[in-house]
Amino acid sequence: MPRFAIVGHKAVTTPDFSLNDMPGAAGRMDVLCRCVNTSFFLSHDLRRDTECYLILKGGEIPKTLRFSGDTIRSLNPDERSAGALIKKGLSTAAEPEFKKAADGIAIRSGGLAELLADFSFAVLDENGEDIRNAETLPENFILSDHMNFTEEEEALLADLPRYSVGPRVLHADHTITVIMNEFDRRQVP
Amino acid sequence: MPRFAIVGHKAVTTPDFSLNDMPGAAGRMDVLCRCVNTSFFLSHDLRRDTECYLILKGGEIPKTLRFSGDTIRSLNPDERSAGALIKKGLSTAAEPEFKKAADGIAIRSGGLAELLADFSFAVLDENGEDIRNAETLPENFILSDHMNFTEEEEALLADLPRYSVGPRVLHADHTITVIMNEFDRRQVP
Repeated sequence: MPRFAIVGHKAVTTPDFSLNDMPGAAGRMDVLCRCVNTSFFLSHDLRRDTECYLILKGGEIPKTLRFSGDTIRSLNPDERSAGALIKKGLSTAAEPEFKKAADGIAIRSGGLAELLADFSFAVLDENGEDIRNAETLPENFILSDHMNFTEEEEALLADLPRYSVGPRVLHADHTITVIMNEFDRRQVP
Repeated sequence: MPRFAIVGHKAVTTPDFSLNDMPGAAGRMDVLCRCVNTSFFLSHDLRRDTECYLILKGGEIPKTLRFSGDTIRSLNPDERSAGALIKKGLSTAAEPEFKKAADGIAIRSGGLAELLADFSFAVLDENGEDIRNAETLPENFILSDHMNFTEEEEALLADLPRYSVGPRVLHADHTITVIMNEFDRRQVP
């Protein structure tokens, strides 16, 4: 199952942000909303076999939201729709284990280190191997929001394989779209 | 220069829509906002050599907005930012010739038929030739929003070449991202 994890370096961890100011006071939550969109949407369908993890680091402690394509409901393609589901997820208290916040949405405390303990990830990196040339495509990808990975994050990611999506550096959500297209081309008969 | 034209079948043609309800009362304006985003954004840069045309058909007469990457200003990646620029474009009266509404934004009356007279386009179609297999990539692409092309539109498009972006049908904005990735791979050394 493809999994995308996006680090939101300034993204708030409480549900009281305004859907009218997600790029500002919510810490570029708009980037994360678009990543939820591109992880799941097909024309008139959802990718049910996909998970999207948002690692929110703009609060006192990091929190991780998990969106699961097989059970998610009420997700529409616009940013406000994903934003409303993020608010719903953040309304549930985060504990060390994932806890259901709504259909297809779970939350826990912890961030990148904890997620790396769960799955083996590949990292998106402009200097990485082109995904088109990868003999086997990794299943799980870590991306950063509009900021670079911090030194501390880079240390956690140091030993992971690195991939790129072509000669230009793209936004995280666009990168997910290109990876999904590569998955589709390899998986759909 | 890559050009993308997106037909917004229900998209309103007056600037009085709410940025808080673009999927609803504005006639799925959110789809068009995301297409503006994917036409232009690179990580920390804009694609200056690109144009995006929005054909708005939800009013009394169709209107066309032209966004030009070389002169556009104040465009941020979130949907509300593109929505605000669409409102600005629609605040200028539409006449048969393109007229500047703001830096990088022009408006005129008329829709698909008029645009097809200006440039030769290719059409996105799930049954079309895969863009990866195209010996030469077309420069200009026509896409539809969340609805299929109408019979009248299909009649206008009947003789145009048809391309697809892979085995699955994607949203218009995701399709633009995949096409741009193919352009990048062919153009960037």
